[in-house]
This record gives sequence, structure tokens and C-alpha cells, in this order.
Amino acid sequence: MIPRIKVAIVGASGYSGEELVRLLLQHPHVELAAVTSRQYAGQTLAQVFPRHGNDPFCRALRFSEPNVELLAKMAEVVFLALPHGVAAEFAAPLLNLGCQVIDLSADFRLKSAAVYQEFYGHEHPAPALLEQSVYGLPEWNRAALKNAALIASPGCYPTSILLPLMPLLKAGLIKSDGIIADSLSGVSGAGRKVERDYLFAECNESMRPYGIPKHRHLSEIEEQLSLAAGLPVIIQFSPHLIPVNRGILTTLYLTPEKASSEQIAQCYEKAYGQEPFVRLLEGKALPDTKNVTGTNMIEIAWRLDPRTGRLIVMSALDNITKGASGQAVQSMNILRGFPETAGLWISPTI
Amino acid sequence: MIPRIKVAIVGASGYSGEELVRLLLQHPHVELAAVTSRQYAGQTLAQVFPRHGNDPFCRALRFSEPNVELLAKMAEVVFLALPHGVAAEFAAPLLNLGCQVIDLSADFRLKSAAVYQEFYGHEHPAPALLEQSVYGLPEWNRAALKNAALIASPGCYPTSILLPLMPLLKAGLIKSDGIIADSLSGVSGAGRKVERDYLFAECNESMRPYGIPKHRHLSEIEEQLSLAAGLPVIIQFSPHLIPVNRGILTTLYLTPEKASSEQIAQCYEKAYGQEPFVRLLEGKALPDTKNVTGTNMIEIAWRLDPRTGRLIVMSALDNITKGASGQAVQSMNILRGFPETAGLWISPTI
Amino acid sequence: MIPRIKVAIVGASGYSGEELVRLLLQHPHVELAAVTSRQYAGQTLAQVFPRHGNDPFCRALRFSEPNVELLAKMAEVVFLALPHGVAAEFAAPLLNLGCQVIDLSADFRLKSAAVYQEFYGHEHPAPALLEQSVYGLPEWNRAALKNAALIASPGCYPTSILLPLMPLLKAGLIKSDGIIADSLSGVSGAGRKVERDYLFAECNESMRPYGIPKHRHLSEIEEQLSLAAGLPVIIQFSPHLIPVNRGILTTLYLTPEKASSEQIAQCYEKAYGQEPFVRLLEGKALPDTKNVTGTNMIEIAWRLDPRTGRLIVMSALDNITKGASGQAVQSMNILRGFPETAGLWISPTI
Amino acid sequence: MIPRIKVAIVGASGYSGEELVRLLLQHPHVELAAVTSRQYAGQTLAQVFPRHGNDPFCRALRFSEPNVELLAKMAEVVFLALPHGVAAEFAAPLLNLGCQVIDLSADFRLKSAAVYQEFYGHEHPAPALLEQSVYGLPEWNRAALKNAALIASPGCYPTSILLPLMPLLKAGLIKSDGIIADSLSGVSGAGRKVERDYLFAECNESMRPYGIPKHRHLSEIEEQLSLAAGLPVIIQFSPHLIPVNRGILTTLYLTPEKASSEQIAQCYEKAYGQEPFVRLLEGKALPDTKNVTGTNMIEIAWRLDPRTGRLIVMSALDNITKGASGQAVQSMNILRGFPETAGLWISPTI
Repeated sequence: MIPRIKVAIVGASGYSGEELVRLLLQHPHVELAAVTSRQYAGQTLAQVFPRHGNDPFCRALRFSEPNVELLAKMAEVVFLALPHGVAAEFAAPLLNLGCQVIDLSADFRLKSAAVYQEFYGHEHPAPALLEQSVYGLPEWNRAALKNAALIASPGCYPTSILLPLMPLLKAGLIKSDGIIADSLSGVSGAGRKVERDYLFAECNESMRPYGIPKHRHLSEIEEQLSLAAGLPVIIQFSPHLIPVNRGILTTLYLTPEKASSEQIAQCYEKAYGQEPFVRLLEGKALPDTKNVTGTNMIEIAWRLDPRTGRLIVMSALDNITKGASGQAVQSMNILRGFPETAGLWISPTI
Repeated sequence: MIPRIKVAIVGASGYSGEELVRLLLQHPHVELAAVTSRQYAGQTLAQVFPRHGNDPFCRALRFSEPNVELLAKMAEVVFLALPHGVAAEFAAPLLNLGCQVIDLSADFRLKSAAVYQEFYGHEHPAPALLEQSVYGLPEWNRAALKNAALIASPGCYPTSILLPLMPLLKAGLIKSDGIIADSLSGVSGAGRKVERDYLFAECNESMRPYGIPKHRHLSEIEEQLSLAAGLPVIIQFSPHLIPVNRGILTTLYLTPEKASSEQIAQCYEKAYGQEPFVRLLEGKALPDTKNVTGTNMIEIAWRLDPRTGRLIVMSALDNITKGASGQAVQSMNILRGFPETAGLWISPTI
Repeated sequence: MIPRIKVAIVGASGYSGEELVRLLLQHPHVELAAVTSRQYAGQTLAQVFPRHGNDPFCRALRFSEPNVELLAKMAEVVFLALPHGVAAEFAAPLLNLGCQVIDLSADFRLKSAAVYQEFYGHEHPAPALLEQSVYGLPEWNRAALKNAALIASPGCYPTSILLPLMPLLKAGLIKSDGIIADSLSGVSGAGRKVERDYLFAECNESMRPYGIPKHRHLSEIEEQLSLAAGLPVIIQFSPHLIPVNRGILTTLYLTPEKASSEQIAQCYEKAYGQEPFVRLLEGKALPDTKNVTGTNMIEIAWRLDPRTGRLIVMSALDNITKGASGQAVQSMNILRGFPETAGLWISPTI
Repeated sequence: MIPRIKVAIVGASGYSGEELVRLLLQHPHVELAAVTSRQYAGQTLAQVFPRHGNDPFCRALRFSEPNVELLAKMAEVVFLALPHGVAAEFAAPLLNLGCQVIDLSADFRLKSAAVYQEFYGHEHPAPALLEQSVYGLPEWNRAALKNAALIASPGCYPTSILLPLMPLLKAGLIKSDGIIADSLSGVSGAGRKVERDYLFAECNESMRPYGIPKHRHLSEIEEQLSLAAGLPVIIQFSPHLIPVNRGILTTLYLTPEKASSEQIAQCYEKAYGQEPFVRLLEGKALPDTKNVTGTNMIEIAWRLDPRTGRLIVMSALDNITKGASGQAVQSMNILRGFPETAGLWISPTI
């Protein structure tokens, strides 16, 4: 019997915070010891999240003001579900007090404080920590995650782009230049931001690009791809807002490096054939976000186009689960030596 | 350690069949031994339901043609997720062969073959079984469910109406005449019927009543209410089709029998205060289908209107889970002596 | 050739304001002389409403700060699309300066300042004007609208309830007590309010009641019904929020006063058989909001239920058109002697 | 006063047929003389399309069986809104009988019967007509359309791709190879096909690619681009299905030929600055399908990416209007010498 560890969520009232609550409540090796929210301090989880309204545990646990000392006393692992810039202010003291920190913001995903400033528009609040943070893409960083004090959980778009790209790039099956990633995101990707652009009647029956051509997630995607390729990689990335609650669909346009169908299939099979959260589609199947919603799964399919010579790779994931909180829990499982699928083997709904 | 029992699903390719698959796959005391589908016989669960595409179990289990003898050899409990009329043809031989049968169709919900014929438009295919079937509303029929050979799992609308009504009616807190139930259903309520009316572009951005004033579910609702009230109850029932995938929201208009707020609150608390799948809302909260989607929960709230003297009761549930497959699994848990929440304690998603 | 009159819209940046822009731009007898918005003053219509981005007129016309004197100089008819409380502050001076005012807020819909205060929570800002305002329900107030200086355009819910009820009540075919109105509204009904409750991911895949049992629109509905019935009428009204952009669907539960099907049919035919914007459905047809979206039409159908003795009447309209701006333009047409359908004969889209 | 010409619609019960009805009913220079539908023959327009339920004209006009001789007697211009393959069977005899034919299917869009067979999987039914048909992209084929007997109205995807591409390609501002078109379509794009894939609950909360890498529309897009470029052009085209009713959003990835921002801006301004149905977005604005829904407008915006050197061009249109029936009416206006915007100057709804 694995003893339960105590964990806390700082900033638990947004979508990824609420998803962490969902996942950690049912996690067999975890006890949710504290949740914080400036806005909801004093209220119970059950009051703030009606979905959990008659869960006895959620009727007892109250949001508290975020207090670093108290958090460090109550929890061994602390998840930060905070805006970028704010997360870094909590990470440093929590680390000093001996906590393991899993940050879902962008604050520790980059190695370069200068690139951070270029893309996020403000100085990095804790550049000294950039060196030690581990990028929490479990399929590629498992070893490093086992001993991480600070995990930077990847962004939703980067996860949907990196997972299909990494095997091909590392195997040299595609050219590292000219990569295009065209992504579609559900509206929860914008967080619970109360802005006119995200009102129901502004999003429903609408499809629109945004953040073109220089979305913030580019910095993180390119850094990871450059590390994988061993040379600087610049990509084209175009996000679009689509009227669904959850999900990211990414279509990648790639130039194969004289790669045959067999080589590509073998490359993916080798990389992900045994991965519990990667579904390599077979036959005529193509990714569909409805098949991954609410789960920690990513679907990947690809087509070599004999007419153009291009390789088209498509992926689908849930931006809040595999793209955020599910992946963060997966990293925690690795960090703490739990079975990697613990609390994450979710049977998907229709 | 409770040993796993073997169960089968007949007609597993519709929405309630697929939901049974989801729930039974993660059920701790059950082994899914067989799934049948005329349309998909020979294909694996993974092929038909891409959501389950890389579950090793689902990659192995194949849909078979429905064969009563084989089913009886393979499974102790058989779920029928078939159209009305068809279900009855399977129930009788399966019972004869010693299976316990949980039927999700309307075939065994009524005690009267004549009322069945009036509402369903054809003669009852197995009237002899009507006597012995147990109506699978666990909150009210727990004792009978423990020894049932044949369970008739309630319809989605009836569940959303009966659960809020039964306590009030049995306690004599409302008049039994003049009851109005106004219900809204997501489109999955129509099943996977391939008809023009249920095409995306015909349902999206549409709100419409249908089946007014004599929807089939009336027969079942009224029989149960009459049993509870001890006298014939006739109600008004108006269903509407709403562009969401899942969920039923019911608003009930009732005439209180000199009932005070305290009496109503106590009545509900007594009836459901300890029920794991009923959430009595407090304070200003009102039901919202998004808070029950994917779960086996029903939300109930009520308001006494001093201006009109009426009692308004509102409920929300997921038509496929508490309104169909979840409730069927709940009945099986009771039937087989499993903890009633086994496999049904689902942490709800955003 | 009818000469064009000059009109202005005060508060043109919300949904009903934008709908007025749409309708008045294509109105054959109107010139849109001014639009005001504190938020967008200085910007062109084309800049604020991208839909009108390359209409030369919209590229020229700029939002101005609302200035009563200027408005009175520029326009003969002024539409107020402002929050309640604010609208009254504009109406009085505009009337004094000789404008005809069509107010889309709740400020002048009631005759009693006390009832206004009870339902809207603040003192009425211009009680002296209540007497002279004309309730802009064209099908019933045509004569009075011809000579109105101040028109109070009805609310969206009231329109969906009053139009189906008025003929029956006036003809004495239904009892005036015990009326229940169960209504479903699209999210634009909440206006362009930037609140968490109206974010896409909070509304999508959600169905929920609100404002139960005492929604503000009750005051207006009951006053009109009481006038029609000649005695005080109290009704039950339950609004629900549904994930569509536009539309209201209302289901009315009524007690017929020994009325036969023929009498009801004749009553509606007499009341609305010649009305351009009322569609009495025939045969098996039932209302569907998608059939009225974007138009000034209301659909009405009814069923006598022999089982319960009740009369069920259903209506569908577009909350922003017939429920707000379209009806306001219809009133203007009557007021100014234009053909009543001028600018409103909109061919509905799929 | 322009006299009205008589027109007919063959196959008027699908989405583009219904949209033709909407547009032609309000067209100032047209009289809708006949509509045909095998399925609905004998029923009135009002019965089949409840939206038009109380339009006196639609209550009188009945669908007829498609009879070429009768059509030719009743109409000067015949719109064919039929499946590919079927359309060609009507075009030939109608042309022989002196009608002008505007075909919305794929049957006459290509010059090569061989390419047709490659992409549509059956022999071309009337190859002799391919020569004389005129591709109905008004912005580029105005002169030819004036004297066309047979107009092939473009597909929805091709329109969304060709209009933004043609000016750049003709001006030599982009390379003709390596073009990528990533497109998102609403579900009405699949027509009123009653298939499981297009059921509400299969499309809602889903985003998915399909037809990759060789969608049928490629044939038409590439033929037009090759004509424009003066050399064979092969492109990458990836369509996706998105849960909205109407709209196509296309993102184009292009390689500029040493083109500056000024040159691109001038190129578009020169091509489309005076076009009534092309909206060139300015400043930070990006296309949004909700701004074109229900109208004949296409929105175009572009960004030069200094990081990648690529040119990103984005377009939004309504697949049923500018992408089908609206454009067909626009072609008819040119053909018959009507003002090009007649019946198409639609004020867009929220």
C-alpha cells in the first residue's frame, strides 16, 4: 500500500486549477491538503465548484489565502495554477522551504530569461530558477522528472505540437526548417478570463485566428524543438479559437527527409508504442478532439502526401488535461515514483 | 476482495450502450465478458469506439452477433440496450437460461400491457414478464432490486421527474393533481438515430418542443406516481430538444398541500440526505446540467413562490448516466450486493 | 416616394443597439443620423462592428458621446438602447426638445412607479412620464402608437408570453389565474454583460434556470395581462438560460374556459390571421427558434390536452429582433405612418 | 424599372437550395417560377421550409418533379443545386432548350474530364460541355460571365482559397509552389446528408480533420491556380469539420517572392479595393466567420512573419452564401446585367 502524500493547489479557481481538483480528488496516492484562491478564500470547494457539491471532502475543505509558510507545512508537492509572473513569486520560497513545485504557468518553461522577456513582455521574476527547472513532458523527460524539485508543466499548444514532432525530429525523418503548426483550441484555453471576446455569444458560431504570427507559446515550442534537433528551429504557429469547451487539434505541415511510410510508422511505434497516454491511430482513422476530451490522452495520425511530398501530422488532446493538469499529475506520478497512470486512467465519455 | 462477475451488453453501439461500456470497463467488481451488435459484429470495441482505441482490453474484445445461448454461458448479468419491442425478445430466453437481466428499454417498465400498447403502438411482446420486473429506481426500490431477476431501468425523463416528485407525493406535501413537468433534453436523448431532425445543423441554434402533449414516457411516469400516491395521477409533460450533447433539466410546477418551507426541506433531507447520487442544492444555487454531466448525480432545488402559492422544483441529470446507464449500473450494484457507488463515483469535468 | 426621416440610437454598442443598426441601415424610410456610445465615442460603426466593416456609410458614421441637445438637432426619432435607470435620464430632455423617443429599456413599460421600484430595486427616475408612455406591442396597441411621443418597447420574455396569451385572455377562453410561462432564452438575452456566468465555457453544454420565482419581467407581463383581463393577473414565470445565441421559446400552461379547439383556432385566426409578423403554425408543426432567428416573426402553436384538460401554447421568437429591436422598428413604422413591415421583411437564413 | 426574369431551382431542398430560395425570394429583379424536389414534390415551399411558413408566395409555390421541358418553359435561368453527376444530366437538355444554367455542383468546374474522373470517381456525364462552362468566380471572371450559357459556380472551399490567392499569384508576389491551405468548415458544408457522422452529438464538442490529403475540391482549386499562374500548381489542402452551422475559415501559408508589406497591401487594394463583396481587414483585425455569416462577403487579412519569412493569409466566408448560393446569384446578376449586388446586400446579424 503506497502511503498518500499531501499536495496543495495554489490558484485553484481557474479551469486548470479546477481540473487539478478533479484529478487529485480521485488520485489513489494523494491527499489534497490545501487549495488557495484570493477570490474565494474562506469558501469550501463544494461552494465554489457546484459539481463537487455533495462530496463530503469538498464540503469540508476551504480555500485559503495563499500563504507560503502554511503551504510548505501542509504539502510536500505544490501545484501552481497561477498566471505567468505570479507563479514565479511562489516557486522560489516554496522551493526554499523544501516543497516540490509543479508549475503550470509559463514561468519556468524557458531556459532563457531574455526570451521570456521578449515573449511575455516583462522581466523574469526569478531567473535563477530557470536553470534547475525540468520541462514536464513525461514522454521525453522521464528521467529528469524523477529528481526534479521544480517542474515546468508544458503549455497546451506546445504539448499538442511537441509530442507529434519530437520523434520525427530526433530521428532525422523531417527537415527542421519550414515546420508549420496550425492549431485549433476550445475556449477554455483562454482560461476563466472575464473578457468580452470570450462571452458565449461572441464565440459561438465563430471561428477565428488570433495571436498571429507571434503567439507566446512559440518561445517554448522552439526551445524544445531546438534542443531536440540540436540546432535552432524556428516554426510557424497559427492558433485559432473554436466554439468548443475543451480540446486542441493541431495539423502539422512537414517536409520529410527522404522518409518512407515504414520509417515513419516505425519511428512513432518506437517512440510511443508503449506510452499509456499516446494513441497512434491506425487505418483511416484521424484525430477527433471528442475522443480525448476529459482524458489525458493524445491522438496522433499522419499522412504522406504523394502529390506534394509533404508529411501531414495531426494530433488531438484535451487542453486542460493532457495539455495542462493531467500532464502535471503525470509528472507528479513520475516524480514521486507512483505508477505513471495513477489517477489518470479515465474512461472517456461520449 | 470481491470477485468480479461476468456481464454482457446486448446492443452496445448506441449512446447508452457506449456509456455502459465506459462505466463497466472501470467497474471494480465486473468483467465485461461480451458485447453484441448486429451492425458491428466482428469488430473490436477499440475499432468501433475510437475513445477506447488503445485500451488493451478494448483492442481484444470483439462485438458478436447477439446469441442468447452464448450470452447466457458467458455472463451472469446481461444489460439490454436495445429498442423497445426488441429488448423483450431477448429478456425471456435469457431469464430462462438463468441470467439476471437489466433492461434499459421501455419494455418492462409498465405493469399493464394495455397501457404499453396504447403508448408504444404495438402489442407487448412478453406480457407475462411485466409482473415480475422491478422498476430500477434505486432510491425508491432498493429492497426489491436486491432480489430481482429482471430490472427495468427507468427512462431519462422519468428519472428527472420521479426523483424530485416522489418524496413530496409520498409525504402528502403536494396535491397529486395538476402536476406539470417541463423538461429540456440534450440531443443524445434521441439516441444514435440517423434522422434529419438530429443533424447538427438542424439542432444547433435551435430550441423546440416535441411530443406534446402525449410523450411515451408519460405512461411510466404516471404509473410510478400513481403507485406512490395511492391513486391515479395524470400529469402534464412537455419535452423540448436543446442543442447540448447530454443532460436533462426539468422544471416542475406543483401545488403544495399547506406545506411550509421547513416541511419541504425536511422531506427532501429525509428522503435524500444520505443518498450518494442526489444533490440537494442549498442557498441560492439552482440546478445546472453542466454540473452533473458525465456523472450519476441528480441535482434538485426548489422554491416556494409566495406570489402564486406554487412550489417550483427543478432537477438536472445526465440523460445517459443517471438517466440510463449509470442508474442501470447502480441497480446492478444493489442486485449483486456491491457497494452502491462502485464504479460510479465519477469526478465531474468542467 | 416617402422622404427619409432622421433617427438616432443612444447606446448602440450592445446587442439590441447593434441589431437596431442592422435594421435601420437597410430601412427604406430612415436615415441613421447618429449613434452614441460612451465606450466607443470617436470610432466609426465599421470599426466597432466588423460585420459592417466595408459599408461606406458605416465607415463614415462615428459614435459620439451622448449629448441630448445634439441628438435633438440631428434626429426626429431617438431609440434608447440603454440600461434601465439610465434610459429615463435621456427620455425626459429628448421629449422636451421635441423628439419622439422609442425606449428599449424597462423604464417606461410600467404604469406604476411603485411596482417599478419593487422589481428594479431603485426609485423610478422620471415617474411623471409613465402616464404618457405607450407600450409598444404593435399587434395590440396600434392605435395608441400612432400618436405616441414616448414608446416603451416590450421586453423579450414579455413579448413571447403576451402575444400568445392576449387573444385567449381577451376572448375569455382561458382562466386568468393559474397561468404558467416556462421560457428558454439564448445567451444574448443577457446583453453584452462581461460576467463570468456568460463566458462561453460556462454556458456551452449547460441548461439552467435563473431568476426563479420573481424575475423582473413579471411586473410588465402581469400589468399587461391585468389590463387585458380587466382584473389583477398573477402568473408563474420561469426563465432558463440555453446555449444558443438568439431566441426565446416559451411554453404556456393554461386552463381553458370550456373552450373548444374550433374556438381557440378562430380566436387566434381573428387576432393574428392578418398580422405580418405572427405565424400561426398548422398541422403537426411546433415552434422552433431556428425558424425565426434574425427575423421579426413570432411562431405560435397550441395543443388542447384531452388527458389533463389543459391548453398548451408555445411560441418562438428572436429575443433581439421581435423581442427587442425589430419590434421597436415596427413601432416606429406605425408611429411615422410607414408600411408596418418596412425594413423588417427579412428572409430567414438556415 | 428592370423587368423581373423568371428563374427556377432544381433540387431546392438541400442547404444551398434553401439558401437560393432565401436569396431569390428577396431579389428585386427575379421571380421564382419553379422549385423542384423529388422528395417534396407536391408540397409548398412553406410546408417544407417552416421559416417561410407565412410568406403568401411560399404558401402558393409547390415543389414539382424535375421536368426539363416544363422548366425550360417556365424559366430563363435555371439553378442546379444537385449532387455531382446528377447536375450534368439536367444541364445538357436545359441548355438545348435555351435556358441559361447556373450549376452549383462540381460537374462543370473542371476543364478536364480525366481530372474529374480521378477526383469524383466516375466518368464525366457530359464532357462536351466542359469547354463552354464559365467558372463563376465573379471577381475574376466578370467578362466571361456576361455571355455564359453555363456557369459552374465554385465550391465553398475553393472560393475561400482562390479569392485570397489569386491577386498574389497573378502579381507574382508569391511562389506558386509550396502553397498550403488549412481550412475549417461548419457542418452545413456536408449538405443535408443524413449520416451518423453529421448527427448533432457526433459533431458538437468535436474538431476533426477529414479528406486528408486528397479532398475533391483540390482539383478545382489547382486548375484555377494553374490558369492564374500560367504553370501547373499543386497545393496542400487540409479541411477540418468544426461545430458551427455556417462558415469557412481558411489559413494560407505562402512564400513571398521578395514582396514587401506595401506591395502586398497594394496588390490586394488594387484587386479588391472596389469589390463589393470582399472586405480587406485593416489594423489588428483578423477574419471571423461570425462577421460574414448570412452574407455574401469574404473577409481577408494577411501578416508577413519576419521570423519565418512567410506570408500568412486568412479568409472567412459563409460556405452557403459566398461559398455557394450567394455567389451563384452574384454570377446571375452579372449574366443578366443586373447590378451585381442586387438581392445580396444583406445586413449581417449578430
